[in-house]
Amino acid sequence: MGFRSRVRAIVDNESFQQAIIAVIVVNAVVLGLQTSDSVVGRFGGLLDLIDQTALAVFTVELAARIYAHGARFFRSSWNWFDFVIVGVSLLPFGQSMAVLRSLRILRALRLVSMVPSMRRVISALVNAVPGIVALAGLLSLLLYVGGVMATTLFGERSPAFGDLGTTVLTLVQITTGDGWSDVMREVMTEYPLAWIFFLCYLLVGTFTMLNLFIAVVCSAMESEVSELTRPQVPAPRAESDAVTSAALLEEIRAVRAEIRTLQSETSAGEPAGRAQ
Amino acid sequence: MGFRSRVRAIVDNESFQQAIIAVIVVNAVVLGLQTSDSVVGRFGGLLDLIDQTALAVFTVELAARIYAHGARFFRSSWNWFDFVIVGVSLLPFGQSMAVLRSLRILRALRLVSMVPSMRRVISALVNAVPGIVALAGLLSLLLYVGGVMATTLFGERSPAFGDLGTTVLTLVQITTGDGWSDVMREVMTEYPLAWIFFLCYLLVGTFTMLNLFIAVVCSAMESEVSELTRPQVPAPRAESDAVTSAALLEEIRAVRAEIRTLQSETSAGEPAGRAQ
Amino acid sequence: MGFRSRVRAIVDNESFQQAIIAVIVVNAVVLGLQTSDSVVGRFGGLLDLIDQTALAVFTVELAARIYAHGARFFRSSWNWFDFVIVGVSLLPFGQSMAVLRSLRILRALRLVSMVPSMRRVISALVNAVPGIVALAGLLSLLLYVGGVMATTLFGERSPAFGDLGTTVLTLVQITTGDGWSDVMREVMTEYPLAWIFFLCYLLVGTFTMLNLFIAVVCSAMESEVSELTRPQVPAPRAESDAVTSAALLEEIRAVRAEIRTLQSETSAGEPAGRAQ
Amino acid sequence: MGFRSRVRAIVDNESFQQAIIAVIVVNAVVLGLQTSDSVVGRFGGLLDLIDQTALAVFTVELAARIYAHGARFFRSSWNWFDFVIVGVSLLPFGQSMAVLRSLRILRALRLVSMVPSMRRVISALVNAVPGIVALAGLLSLLLYVGGVMATTLFGERSPAFGDLGTTVLTLVQITTGDGWSDVMREVMTEYPLAWIFFLCYLLVGTFTMLNLFIAVVCSAMESEVSELTRPQVPAPRAESDAVTSAALLEEIRAVRAEIRTLQSETSAGEPAGRAQ
Repeated sequence: MGFRSRVRAIVDNESFQQAIIAVIVVNAVVLGLQTSDSVVGRFGGLLDLIDQTALAVFTVELAARIYAHGARFFRSSWNWFDFVIVGVSLLPFGQSMAVLRSLRILRALRLVSMVPSMRRVISALVNAVPGIVALAGLLSLLLYVGGVMATTLFGERSPAFGDLGTTVLTLVQITTGDGWSDVMREVMTEYPLAWIFFLCYLLVGTFTMLNLFIAVVCSAMESEVSELTRPQVPAPRAESDAVTSAALLEEIRAVRAEIRTLQSETSAGEPAGRAQ
Repeated sequence: MGFRSRVRAIVDNESFQQAIIAVIVVNAVVLGLQTSDSVVGRFGGLLDLIDQTALAVFTVELAARIYAHGARFFRSSWNWFDFVIVGVSLLPFGQSMAVLRSLRILRALRLVSMVPSMRRVISALVNAVPGIVALAGLLSLLLYVGGVMATTLFGERSPAFGDLGTTVLTLVQITTGDGWSDVMREVMTEYPLAWIFFLCYLLVGTFTMLNLFIAVVCSAMESEVSELTRPQVPAPRAESDAVTSAALLEEIRAVRAEIRTLQSETSAGEPAGRAQ
Repeated sequence: MGFRSRVRAIVDNESFQQAIIAVIVVNAVVLGLQTSDSVVGRFGGLLDLIDQTALAVFTVELAARIYAHGARFFRSSWNWFDFVIVGVSLLPFGQSMAVLRSLRILRALRLVSMVPSMRRVISALVNAVPGIVALAGLLSLLLYVGGVMATTLFGERSPAFGDLGTTVLTLVQITTGDGWSDVMREVMTEYPLAWIFFLCYLLVGTFTMLNLFIAVVCSAMESEVSELTRPQVPAPRAESDAVTSAALLEEIRAVRAEIRTLQSETSAGEPAGRAQ
Repeated sequence: MGFRSRVRAIVDNESFQQAIIAVIVVNAVVLGLQTSDSVVGRFGGLLDLIDQTALAVFTVELAARIYAHGARFFRSSWNWFDFVIVGVSLLPFGQSMAVLRSLRILRALRLVSMVPSMRRVISALVNAVPGIVALAGLLSLLLYVGGVMATTLFGERSPAFGDLGTTVLTLVQITTGDGWSDVMREVMTEYPLAWIFFLCYLLVGTFTMLNLFIAVVCSAMESEVSELTRPQVPAPRAESDAVTSAALLEEIRAVRAEIRTLQSETSAGEPAGRAQ
């Protein structure tokens, strides 16, 4: 057994994976504690040390997995997920920029890739995505068209529709139904007929959202239903039925063959003139 | 091949349609840029030129399609959709009124009629409409009845119910659940028993909305389910079953016929007195 | 044909019912116009006259229907609905109290009882009710228990939980998710641990609401599905199958009987000693 | 019949249980009245007396049930529910701490364990739980990861993201869609690019919530559907089919056997040389 096989045996070992899960959890807790100034003031050095150690562990583990599995490692999108999350933390300017520092906590999402039941949930979520791409495109188009219209109509005197970016954010807000009436009331003080636009947009937007929702539900239900009904009801029945019917047909044909034999025998035993 | 056939070949050509899609996208981006005063200040002339050119392209394309397909052009509601959207932009006062100018961006919706996957989504949305007409009527009736009641009850001292129009807008707001409790609290300072009306309306309104929602889901599910189950499970099975059963019956009848022949032959071969 | 039959022929006549629908619509419009002070100032007398006439028409129509159908009139809940709505308007103090005056617009709901497609929608809504009675009871219990708890815990220093009635209204607000975070933030300034109660209540409340919702959806789906699948798939198939199988069995038994006859004949034609 | 059997007969008696339900309702009303200071001022002593009596009744009833059923009492989770709720009220410091005093109203929840239709509803709710554990875990992870990110990014200058606890509460608020746009607008005054985080979180959070929702609906539908279809359609049909097919097969085999007998008889009655 070569060195690579031994490494593979280690990284695929269940206790090794549970140790990694433990490191992920400890790291997540440490990153949580680091958000508190008072805790950082007292234990800042220790927390940084644990964080650096965890990152080192992840890096070594990832390197070991890549070495063990070779090119096959990159065939799984879960591995890509781990690779990117650890890779981001290793960027040289990772500790200096607030945005990149905040991305460290994404390592906690590695839990999802380690725990099978969570993997299944994520897979189910991801599987629901293709069914909604066209609807999401339609919703984006709607936001853009609505945004240009509202900016043209209300942009001059209403700050919530001042420029295209702000308008699209306001329309997202209206589409989720959060405080849309306040926005409408405010605009209506300047443009009394603005309610026509708002009601139309609300109708079209929520109707599209609703259908987006239904598309997700349907695609989820579909797999549920097909899982529920296909193996139980149609497939086996069709098979068993077909088998039974075929067996019946075969039996009946055997009966006919035997009768024919009988017939030929009987008629053969009679005077020739009787057979028509 | 006449001129009309040549025009038809062009307008039905896929690269021609992709070129039109490109013009739609460019036009939509230009209209988006025109919402920004600073961009208009610098490139206003260029953007206007592109917009005018796009409109010219759409007009020529539409004319070509009408010429190519003749009366059949107006049989498709998608064509009507394109016709109206381009037509609105060609109205003489289209550039002067803000409302009509804002309608230009609707041309971006032509994307929907050009991209097949979006057409399917819209068709699905439109198919869900007839199932909800009665419920939408009921909801409108509810808004009107609730509006008249609330205006009569609270109109004197509560601005949110000052006149019928305002009241109906407020009721739409309550039905979508957006800030209904603020409205109720405000009215309750004047009319302490107003919560009776609000809770009743909330119950009836959201229950009707919920059923509207269910109606859409059901009609969507129905087509999903029927698509899912009809071709796979019942239809073919029923058919195959019927065929098999029929085949069996035929076989058995053939057996009977043969046995009858056999019987007649056998009995014929025996002394007549024996047959009872 | 007696007088009663003639009356029945009139009230059951379709044009008569369309005339009544017209009166309902006119009356609803008049009641809507009466909410506007300026319109009442100018056409107040005319509107009152139309309203009184409409009420007279409804009263006469109702009396005619009761006379025509006798006791059977009160067997339909739709008729009870009409009876109560017209009856309320006839109460002597109906014009003096604002609340009762506001109930006049309920006459517009008679449209629902006159238009078949709306009747169906309402019937569907009403059919969904029994499935949710237990859940509605549970939700009420939850509101009461949560109300007593919150009043005990926060009543002293938070106005939104001052007494049981106010608390229950606040909890209804939280359950619908409208501005619950503002309420929580306000209470948390006094009771920093209040978020425990709010998150628990939000979880339990929305989960129960969600199940209430699902119960309605399920009962709606059930009837949809049963309508969709019962007539098409199981019932006829089971029947046709049973029939076919029965026919097959009968045929085969007939075969056996014929063979037995054949057998007895054949064996009878042979020397007795040969039959074992 | 020993003393224990007599006790068991009493506690399992229906009128005894209805009496307990009556005590629960009276106790719940009393606890409701105790939230009103004016009522407590006038009838405080009486209400306390009734409350103490009800608690005594519950304690005696619980002791009797434990005595009557012995160890089996603790096998039902409903009994544990009753046991804990009454036990909490008996803690010595139960009357002094506001939190524990507020828990007394939980006794009203015993109604749920006494009324069969409510037990069924709760059982259905509880049955839906296992299907959503993984998703709830994912949502918690999302809240934690989002919380650490948002605190790191916005914590310095935005009070709504000041520390991890506050941030998680704010994220729960955003996930439920309650006033998320106000929070975003406020943060955007300090961090103009904050909308990227908010839109991403809103998308991921509501998508996960939606799937949580779908998981509950699906698990509810599944049991609905399986209840609806399993007993009616597949199970009995498969059985009846199998039986029928088996019967047919048996019949046909009997036919073959008879024919074989017939054949052997016939061939036996003929000169040996004729049989091929």
